[in-house]
Amino acid sequence: MDEKEIKVLNDIGRNFMKCPVWDEALRSDQDKKLPQPELYHEAAPDSEVISLPQNFEELDLNENLFSLLRSRKSRRIYSEEALSLLELSFLLWSAQGVKGRRGKRYATLRTVPSGGARHGFECYVDVVRVTGMEPGIYHYLAGSHALELRSRQTEEDRLQAVEGQKWAVRAPATFYFSAVLYRFEWRYSIHAHRIALVDLGHIGENLYLAAEALK
Amino acid sequence: MDEKEIKVLNDIGRNFMKCPVWDEALRSDQDKKLPQPELYHEAAPDSEVISLPQNFEELDLNENLFSLLRSRKSRRIYSEEALSLLELSFLLWSAQGVKGRRGKRYATLRTVPSGGARHGFECYVDVVRVTGMEPGIYHYLAGSHALELRSRQTEEDRLQAVEGQKWAVRAPATFYFSAVLYRFEWRYSIHAHRIALVDLGHIGENLYLAAEALK
Repeated sequence: MDEKEIKVLNDIGRNFMKCPVWDEALRSDQDKKLPQPELYHEAAPDSEVISLPQNFEELDLNENLFSLLRSRKSRRIYSEEALSLLELSFLLWSAQGVKGRRGKRYATLRTVPSGGARHGFECYVDVVRVTGMEPGIYHYLAGSHALELRSRQTEEDRLQAVEGQKWAVRAPATFYFSAVLYRFEWRYSIHAHRIALVDLGHIGENLYLAAEALK
Repeated sequence: MDEKEIKVLNDIGRNFMKCPVWDEALRSDQDKKLPQPELYHEAAPDSEVISLPQNFEELDLNENLFSLLRSRKSRRIYSEEALSLLELSFLLWSAQGVKGRRGKRYATLRTVPSGGARHGFECYVDVVRVTGMEPGIYHYLAGSHALELRSRQTEEDRLQAVEGQKWAVRAPATFYFSAVLYRFEWRYSIHAHRIALVDLGHIGENLYLAAEALK
Protein backbone atom coordinates (compact mmCIF):
# COMPACT_ATOMS: atom_id res chain seq x y z
CA MET A 1 0.00 0.00 0.00
CA ASP A 2 1.56 3.32 -1.00
CA GLU A 3 1.13 6.68 0.74
CA LYS A 4 -1.60 7.73 -1.66
CA GLU A 5 -3.68 4.62 -1.04
CA ILE A 6 -3.24 5.05 2.70
CA LYS A 7 -4.43 8.66 2.41
CA VAL A 8 -7.53 7.58 0.48
CA LEU A 9 -8.42 4.91 3.05
CA ASN A 10 -7.72 7.28 5.92
CA ASP A 11 -10.05 9.87 4.37
CA ILE A 12 -12.75 7.21 3.99
CA GLY A 13 -12.40 6.53 7.72
CA ARG A 14 -12.54 10.21 8.62
CA ASN A 15 -15.55 10.85 6.43
CA PHE A 16 -17.26 7.85 7.93
CA MET A 17 -16.80 9.33 11.42
CA LYS A 18 -18.27 12.64 10.32
CA CYS A 19 -21.67 11.37 9.26
CA PRO A 20 -21.32 13.34 6.02
CA VAL A 21 -24.82 12.76 4.71
CA TRP A 22 -27.85 13.87 6.64
CA ASP A 23 -30.97 13.72 4.55
CA GLU A 24 -34.19 14.57 6.37
CA ALA A 25 -36.10 12.69 3.69
CA LEU A 26 -34.20 9.43 4.25
CA ARG A 27 -36.63 6.72 5.26
CA SER A 28 -35.35 3.64 7.03
CA ASP A 29 -36.91 0.22 6.56
CA GLN A 30 -38.58 0.79 9.92
CA ASP A 31 -40.11 4.02 8.57
CA LYS A 32 -41.30 2.06 5.55
CA LYS A 33 -42.89 -0.48 7.90
CA LEU A 34 -40.88 -3.35 6.45
CA PRO A 35 -40.77 -6.51 8.60
CA GLN A 36 -38.49 -6.28 11.58
CA PRO A 37 -35.56 -8.69 11.90
CA GLU A 38 -35.46 -11.15 14.79
CA LEU A 39 -34.28 -9.72 18.13
CA TYR A 40 -31.71 -12.47 18.66
CA HIS A 41 -30.75 -15.79 17.15
CA GLU A 42 -32.62 -18.79 18.50
CA ALA A 43 -30.93 -22.13 19.19
CA ALA A 44 -30.13 -24.23 16.15
CA PRO A 45 -32.41 -27.29 15.75
CA ASP A 46 -31.11 -30.29 17.74
CA SER A 47 -28.48 -28.24 19.52
CA GLU A 48 -27.60 -29.15 23.06
CA VAL A 49 -28.69 -26.26 25.29
CA ILE A 50 -27.11 -25.52 28.66
CA SER A 51 -29.19 -23.34 30.98
CA LEU A 52 -27.13 -20.81 32.89
CA PRO A 53 -27.53 -20.23 36.64
CA GLN A 54 -28.59 -16.74 37.73
CA ASN A 55 -28.01 -16.85 41.47
CA PHE A 56 -25.50 -14.02 41.13
CA GLU A 57 -25.97 -12.97 44.75
CA GLU A 58 -23.96 -16.09 45.64
CA LEU A 59 -20.91 -14.77 43.78
CA ASP A 60 -18.40 -13.11 46.05
CA LEU A 61 -18.15 -9.99 43.87
CA ASN A 62 -16.17 -6.84 44.31
CA GLU A 63 -19.19 -4.77 43.43
CA ASN A 64 -18.14 -1.26 44.30
CA LEU A 65 -18.23 0.84 41.11
CA PHE A 66 -15.78 3.43 42.37
CA SER A 67 -13.12 0.85 43.21
CA LEU A 68 -13.82 -1.07 39.97
CA LEU A 69 -13.19 2.05 37.90
CA ARG A 70 -10.03 2.67 39.88
CA SER A 71 -8.64 -0.85 39.53
CA ARG A 72 -9.78 -1.88 36.03
CA LYS A 73 -6.92 -2.36 33.62
CA SER A 74 -6.02 -4.67 30.75
CA ARG A 75 -4.79 -7.96 32.13
CA ARG A 76 -3.03 -10.33 29.77
CA ILE A 77 -1.77 -12.90 32.26
CA TYR A 78 -4.32 -15.48 33.37
CA SER A 79 -4.35 -17.93 36.25
CA GLU A 80 -4.73 -21.61 35.39
CA GLU A 81 -7.88 -21.83 37.48
CA ALA A 82 -11.18 -22.58 35.82
CA LEU A 83 -14.12 -20.19 35.87
CA SER A 84 -17.26 -21.52 37.50
CA LEU A 85 -20.42 -21.77 35.40
CA LEU A 86 -21.95 -19.07 37.60
CA GLU A 87 -19.04 -16.72 36.89
CA LEU A 88 -19.32 -17.31 33.14
CA SER A 89 -23.06 -16.76 33.43
CA PHE A 90 -22.49 -13.42 35.18
CA LEU A 91 -20.09 -12.25 32.46
CA LEU A 92 -22.58 -13.16 29.73
CA TRP A 93 -25.44 -11.51 31.57
CA SER A 94 -23.40 -8.33 32.07
CA ALA A 95 -22.48 -8.19 28.39
CA GLN A 96 -25.80 -9.09 26.76
CA GLY A 97 -28.38 -10.16 29.35
CA VAL A 98 -32.03 -9.47 28.55
CA LYS A 99 -33.89 -7.82 31.43
CA GLY A 100 -37.10 -6.78 29.74
CA ARG A 101 -38.98 -6.40 26.49
CA ARG A 102 -40.86 -3.69 24.66
CA GLY A 103 -43.94 -4.88 22.84
CA LYS A 104 -44.35 -8.45 21.71
CA ARG A 105 -41.21 -8.46 19.65
CA TYR A 106 -40.24 -4.83 19.16
CA ALA A 107 -37.17 -4.66 21.38
CA THR A 108 -35.22 -6.25 24.20
CA LEU A 109 -33.97 -4.16 27.11
CA ARG A 110 -30.61 -5.41 28.25
CA THR A 111 -27.93 -4.88 30.86
CA VAL A 112 -26.03 -2.98 28.16
CA PRO A 113 -27.32 0.07 26.29
CA SER A 114 -27.85 -0.02 22.52
CA GLY A 115 -28.86 2.81 20.18
CA GLY A 116 -32.61 2.49 19.64
CA ALA A 117 -32.49 -0.78 21.66
CA ARG A 118 -31.49 -2.62 18.48
CA HIS A 119 -28.98 -4.96 20.16
CA GLY A 120 -27.52 -6.22 16.92
CA PHE A 121 -24.75 -8.41 18.31
CA GLU A 122 -24.63 -12.15 18.86
CA CYS A 123 -22.17 -13.35 21.47
CA TYR A 124 -20.01 -16.47 21.20
CA VAL A 125 -17.74 -17.82 23.92
CA ASP A 126 -14.70 -19.95 23.35
CA VAL A 127 -14.76 -22.03 26.53
CA VAL A 128 -11.40 -23.43 27.60
CA ARG A 129 -11.57 -23.84 31.37
CA VAL A 130 -15.06 -23.60 32.82
CA THR A 131 -15.96 -26.13 35.50
CA GLY A 132 -18.35 -28.75 34.19
CA MET A 133 -18.26 -27.60 30.56
CA GLU A 134 -16.67 -29.25 27.58
CA PRO A 135 -14.29 -26.93 25.75
CA GLY A 136 -15.68 -25.50 22.53
CA ILE A 137 -17.37 -22.54 20.92
CA TYR A 138 -20.74 -21.81 22.44
CA HIS A 139 -23.40 -19.41 21.23
CA TYR A 140 -25.13 -17.30 23.87
CA LEU A 141 -28.91 -17.58 23.64
CA ALA A 142 -29.88 -14.14 24.89
CA GLY A 143 -33.61 -14.92 24.85
CA SER A 144 -33.29 -17.70 27.41
CA HIS A 145 -29.91 -16.93 29.07
CA ALA A 146 -28.44 -20.23 27.94
CA LEU A 147 -25.59 -21.56 25.82
CA GLU A 148 -25.54 -23.96 22.90
CA LEU A 149 -22.43 -25.78 21.71
CA ARG A 150 -21.55 -24.82 18.16
CA SER A 151 -18.13 -26.28 17.39
CA ARG A 152 -14.90 -27.57 18.82
CA GLN A 153 -11.59 -25.91 18.18
CA THR A 154 -8.01 -27.02 17.89
CA GLU A 155 -5.27 -25.00 19.54
CA GLU A 156 -4.36 -23.78 16.07
CA ASP A 157 -7.90 -22.56 15.31
CA ARG A 158 -7.88 -20.66 18.54
CA LEU A 159 -4.56 -18.99 17.89
CA GLN A 160 -5.62 -17.99 14.40
CA ALA A 161 -8.83 -16.44 15.74
CA VAL A 162 -6.82 -14.04 17.90
CA GLU A 163 -4.34 -13.19 15.14
CA GLY A 164 -1.58 -15.24 16.74
CA GLN A 165 -1.57 -13.40 20.08
CA LYS A 166 -0.40 -16.18 22.38
CA TRP A 167 -1.39 -14.50 25.64
CA ALA A 168 -5.00 -14.40 24.48
CA VAL A 169 -5.42 -18.17 24.05
CA ARG A 170 -4.42 -18.69 27.68
CA ALA A 171 -7.65 -17.14 28.98
CA PRO A 172 -10.20 -19.54 30.51
CA ALA A 173 -12.83 -18.12 28.14
CA THR A 174 -12.74 -15.72 25.20
CA PHE A 175 -15.75 -13.67 24.08
CA TYR A 176 -16.48 -12.97 20.42
CA PHE A 177 -19.20 -10.67 19.13
CA SER A 178 -20.72 -10.94 15.70
CA ALA A 179 -22.71 -8.02 14.27
CA VAL A 180 -26.03 -8.78 12.60
CA LEU A 181 -26.01 -5.48 10.75
CA TYR A 182 -29.54 -5.45 9.44
CA ARG A 183 -30.84 -5.20 13.00
CA PHE A 184 -29.19 -1.77 13.14
CA GLU A 185 -29.88 -0.87 9.50
CA TRP A 186 -33.60 -1.62 9.77
CA ARG A 187 -33.90 1.42 12.05
CA TYR A 188 -30.85 3.54 11.21
CA SER A 189 -30.27 2.85 7.51
CA ILE A 190 -26.93 4.29 6.34
CA HIS A 191 -26.14 5.56 9.86
CA ALA A 192 -26.30 2.07 11.37
CA HIS A 193 -22.61 1.23 11.28
CA ARG A 194 -21.31 3.99 13.50
CA ILE A 195 -23.99 3.13 16.03
CA ALA A 196 -23.05 -0.56 15.94
CA LEU A 197 -19.41 0.21 16.72
CA VAL A 198 -20.32 2.46 19.65
CA ASP A 199 -22.60 -0.31 20.93
CA LEU A 200 -19.69 -2.72 20.79
CA GLY A 201 -17.86 -0.38 23.15
CA HIS A 202 -20.79 -0.43 25.58
CA ILE A 203 -20.63 -4.22 25.62
CA GLY A 204 -16.87 -4.31 26.02
CA GLU A 205 -16.92 -1.97 28.99
CA ASN A 206 -19.65 -3.91 30.79
CA LEU A 207 -17.67 -7.10 30.25
CA TYR A 208 -14.51 -5.39 31.48
CA LEU A 209 -16.16 -4.17 34.69
CA ALA A 210 -17.90 -7.49 35.33
CA ALA A 211 -14.60 -9.36 34.91
CA GLU A 212 -12.94 -6.90 37.27
CA ALA A 213 -15.70 -7.58 39.81
CA LEU A 214 -14.95 -11.33 39.87
CA LYS A 215 -12.47 -12.08 42.62
CA MET B 1 -31.46 10.28 -1.86
CA ASP B 2 -32.66 7.45 -4.09
CA GLU B 3 -32.51 3.72 -3.36
CA LYS B 4 -29.30 3.33 -5.34
CA GLU B 5 -27.48 6.06 -3.41
CA ILE B 6 -28.69 4.56 -0.14
CA LYS B 7 -27.36 1.16 -1.22
CA VAL B 8 -23.95 2.65 -2.05
CA LEU B 9 -23.71 4.43 1.32
CA ASN B 10 -24.91 1.35 3.16
CA ASP B 11 -22.24 -0.74 1.44
CA ILE B 12 -19.59 1.81 2.44
CA GLY B 13 -20.74 1.39 6.04
CA ARG B 14 -20.69 -2.40 5.83
CA ASN B 15 -17.26 -2.48 4.23
CA PHE B 16 -15.99 -0.10 6.87
CA MET B 17 -17.13 -2.52 9.60
CA LYS B 18 -15.37 -5.41 7.91
CA CYS B 19 -11.87 -3.98 8.01
CA PRO B 20 -11.47 -4.90 4.34
CA VAL B 21 -7.80 -4.06 4.01
CA TRP B 22 -5.21 -5.79 6.13
CA ASP B 23 -1.72 -5.15 4.88
CA GLU B 24 1.07 -6.60 7.00
CA ALA B 25 3.45 -4.09 5.46
CA LEU B 26 1.37 -1.08 6.54
CA ARG B 27 3.46 1.14 8.78
CA SER B 28 1.74 3.61 11.07
CA ASP B 29 3.26 6.97 11.96
CA GLN B 30 4.21 5.39 15.27
CA ASP B 31 6.07 2.63 13.39
CA LYS B 32 7.82 5.35 11.40
CA LYS B 33 8.80 7.04 14.66
CA LEU B 34 7.04 10.27 13.73
CA PRO B 35 6.40 12.67 16.63
CA GLN B 36 3.55 11.66 18.87
CA PRO B 37 0.55 13.96 19.25
CA GLU B 38 -0.24 15.47 22.64
CA LEU B 39 -2.05 13.18 25.10
CA TYR B 40 -4.76 15.73 25.84
CA HIS B 41 -5.48 19.39 25.19
CA GLU B 42 -4.03 21.80 27.71
CA ALA B 43 -5.94 24.84 28.97
CA ALA B 44 -6.13 27.76 26.58
CA PRO B 45 -3.92 30.73 27.58
CA ASP B 46 -5.70 33.06 30.03
CA SER B 47 -8.57 30.67 30.54
CA GLU B 48 -10.22 30.54 33.93
CA VAL B 49 -9.54 27.09 35.40
CA ILE B 50 -11.77 25.45 37.99
CA SER B 51 -10.17 22.62 39.96
CA LEU B 52 -12.50 19.72 40.58
CA PRO B 53 -12.89 18.06 43.98
CA GLN B 54 -11.98 14.37 44.21
CA ASN B 55 -13.34 13.40 47.62
CA PHE B 56 -15.64 10.89 45.94
CA GLU B 57 -15.91 8.81 49.11
CA GLU B 58 -18.16 11.61 50.42
CA LEU B 59 -20.71 10.98 47.67
CA ASP B 60 -23.58 8.81 48.78
CA LEU B 61 -23.27 6.47 45.78
CA ASN B 62 -25.20 3.41 44.86
CA GLU B 63 -22.00 1.58 44.07
CA ASN B 64 -23.11 -2.00 43.65
CA LEU B 65 -22.28 -3.10 40.07
CA PHE B 66 -24.85 -5.86 39.98
CA SER B 67 -27.71 -3.54 40.95
CA LEU B 68 -26.40 -0.79 38.64
CA LEU B 69 -26.48 -3.16 35.67
CA ARG B 70 -29.96 -4.22 36.66
CA SER B 71 -31.36 -0.71 37.07
CA ARG B 72 -29.54 1.27 34.35
CA LYS B 73 -31.84 2.51 31.62
CA SER B 74 -32.17 5.58 29.42
CA ARG B 75 -33.77 8.38 31.41
CA ARG B 76 -35.07 11.39 29.52
CA ILE B 77 -36.90 13.16 32.33
CA TYR B 78 -34.73 15.23 34.65
CA SER B 79 -35.38 16.73 38.06
CA GLU B 80 -34.95 20.49 38.41
CA GLU B 81 -32.32 19.99 41.09
CA ALA B 82 -28.76 21.08 40.45
CA LEU B 83 -25.83 18.68 40.42
CA SER B 84 -23.14 19.38 42.99
CA LEU B 85 -19.63 20.13 41.77
CA LEU B 86 -18.51 16.85 43.37
CA GLU B 87 -21.14 14.91 41.41
CA LEU B 88 -20.09 16.54 38.14
CA SER B 89 -16.47 15.81 39.03
CA PHE B 90 -17.29 12.14 39.58
CA LEU B 91 -19.03 11.89 36.20
CA LEU B 92 -16.04 13.46 34.43
CA TRP B 93 -13.59 11.26 36.28
CA SER B 94 -15.59 8.14 35.39
CA ALA B 95 -15.71 9.11 31.72
CA GLN B 96 -12.15 10.33 31.16
CA GLY B 97 -10.21 10.52 34.44
CA VAL B 98 -6.45 9.98 34.26
CA LYS B 99 -5.20 7.51 36.87
CA GLY B 100 -1.67 6.89 35.67
CA ARG B 101 0.87 7.42 32.92
CA ARG B 102 3.18 5.29 30.81
CA GLY B 103 6.53 6.86 30.12
CA LYS B 104 7.05 10.60 30.20
CA ARG B 105 4.43 11.30 27.59
CA TYR B 106 3.69 8.00 25.88
CA ALA B 107 0.23 7.30 27.26
CA THR B 108 -2.31 8.05 29.94
CA LEU B 109 -4.08 5.27 31.79
CA ARG B 110 -7.65 6.23 32.51
CA THR B 111 -10.81 5.05 34.22
CA VAL B 112 -12.02 4.08 30.75
CA PRO B 113 -10.27 1.66 28.38
CA SER B 114 -8.96 2.84 25.01
CA GLY B 115 -7.40 0.78 22.21
CA GLY B 116 -3.62 1.12 22.60
CA ALA B 117 -4.27 3.66 25.41
CA ARG B 118 -4.64 6.38 22.76
CA HIS B 119 -7.52 8.21 24.48
CA GLY B 120 -8.30 10.40 21.51
CA PHE B 121 -11.36 12.18 22.86
CA GLU B 122 -11.71 15.59 24.44
CA CYS B 123 -14.69 16.08 26.71
CA TYR B 124 -16.86 19.21 26.89
CA VAL B 125 -19.69 19.78 29.35
CA ASP B 126 -22.60 22.09 28.79
CA VAL B 127 -23.28 23.15 32.38
CA VAL B 128 -26.83 24.28 33.07
CA ARG B 129 -27.47 23.57 36.75
CA VAL B 130 -24.36 22.80 38.76
CA THR B 131 -24.14 24.41 42.19
CA GLY B 132 -21.60 27.22 42.25
CA MET B 133 -20.88 27.19 38.50
CA GLU B 134 -21.86 29.68 35.87
CA PRO B 135 -23.73 28.07 32.98
CA GLY B 136 -21.63 27.61 29.85
CA ILE B 137 -19.56 25.19 27.83
CA TYR B 138 -16.57 23.93 29.77
CA HIS B 139 -13.64 21.91 28.50
CA TYR B 140 -12.44 19.05 30.71
CA LEU B 141 -8.71 19.26 31.38
CA ALA B 142 -7.91 15.58 31.75
CA GLY B 143 -4.30 16.21 32.73
CA SER B 144 -5.24 18.14 35.87
CA HIS B 145 -8.86 17.03 36.47
CA ALA B 146 -10.16 20.56 36.07
CA LEU B 147 -12.54 22.55 33.88
CA GLU B 148 -12.04 25.69 31.83
CA LEU B 149 -14.88 27.89 30.60
CA ARG B 150 -14.96 28.03 26.82
CA SER B 151 -18.18 29.76 25.80
CA ARG B 152 -21.68 30.69 26.84
CA GLN B 153 -24.72 29.40 25.05
CA THR B 154 -28.19 30.65 24.34
CA GLU B 155 -31.16 28.33 24.72
CA GLU B 156 -31.28 28.20 20.94
CA ASP B 157 -27.63 27.14 20.61
CA ARG B 158 -28.27 24.37 23.07
CA LEU B 159 -31.34 23.08 21.28
CA GLN B 160 -29.52 23.11 17.96
CA ALA B 161 -26.62 21.13 19.43
CA VAL B 162 -28.97 18.27 20.33
CA GLU B 163 -30.79 18.35 16.98
CA GLY B 164 -33.88 19.93 18.49
CA GLN B 165 -34.54 17.21 21.06
CA LYS B 166 -36.27 19.23 23.78
CA TRP B 167 -35.93 16.65 26.55
CA ALA B 168 -32.15 16.77 26.18
CA VAL B 169 -31.77 20.47 26.97
CA ARG B 170 -33.52 19.95 30.30
CA ALA B 171 -30.59 17.98 31.74
CA PRO B 172 -28.50 19.76 34.40
CA ALA B 173 -25.38 19.01 32.34
CA THR B 174 -24.77 17.56 28.87
CA PHE B 175 -21.54 15.83 27.88
CA TYR B 176 -20.03 16.19 24.41
CA PHE B 177 -17.03 14.28 23.10
CA SER B 178 -14.83 15.48 20.31
CA ALA B 179 -12.49 13.05 18.55
CA VAL B 180 -8.91 14.15 17.92
CA LEU B 181 -8.45 11.54 15.22
CA TYR B 182 -4.72 11.78 14.74
CA ARG B 183 -4.19 10.46 18.27
CA PHE B 184 -5.73 7.19 17.04
CA GLU B 185 -4.25 7.38 13.53
CA TRP B 186 -0.70 7.89 14.79
CA ARG B 187 -0.80 4.32 16.09
CA TYR B 188 -3.54 2.63 14.05
CA SER B 189 -3.34 4.39 10.67
CA ILE B 190 -6.31 3.48 8.46
CA HIS B 191 -7.79 1.26 11.20
CA ALA B 192 -8.06 4.15 13.67
CA HIS B 193 -11.67 5.09 13.05
CA ARG B 194 -13.33 1.84 14.04
CA ILE B 195 -11.26 1.84 17.22
CA ALA B 196 -12.28 5.42 18.01
CA LEU B 197 -15.98 4.57 17.75
CA VAL B 198 -15.64 1.54 20.02
CA ASP B 199 -13.76 3.74 22.50
CA LEU B 200 -16.66 6.18 22.46
CA GLY B 201 -18.87 3.32 23.59
CA HIS B 202 -16.52 2.56 26.49
CA ILE B 203 -16.80 6.17 27.60
CA GLY B 204 -20.57 6.26 27.20
CA GLU B 205 -21.07 3.16 29.31
CA ASN B 206 -18.85 4.42 32.13
CA LEU B 207 -20.77 7.68 32.13
CA TYR B 208 -24.06 5.78 32.12
CA LEU B 209 -23.08 3.64 35.10
CA ALA B 210 -21.62 6.57 37.04
CA ALA B 211 -24.82 8.58 36.48
CA GLU B 212 -26.86 5.60 37.62
CA ALA B 213 -24.72 5.42 40.77
CA LEU B 214 -25.59 9.02 41.76
CA LYS B 215 -28.62 9.01 44.00
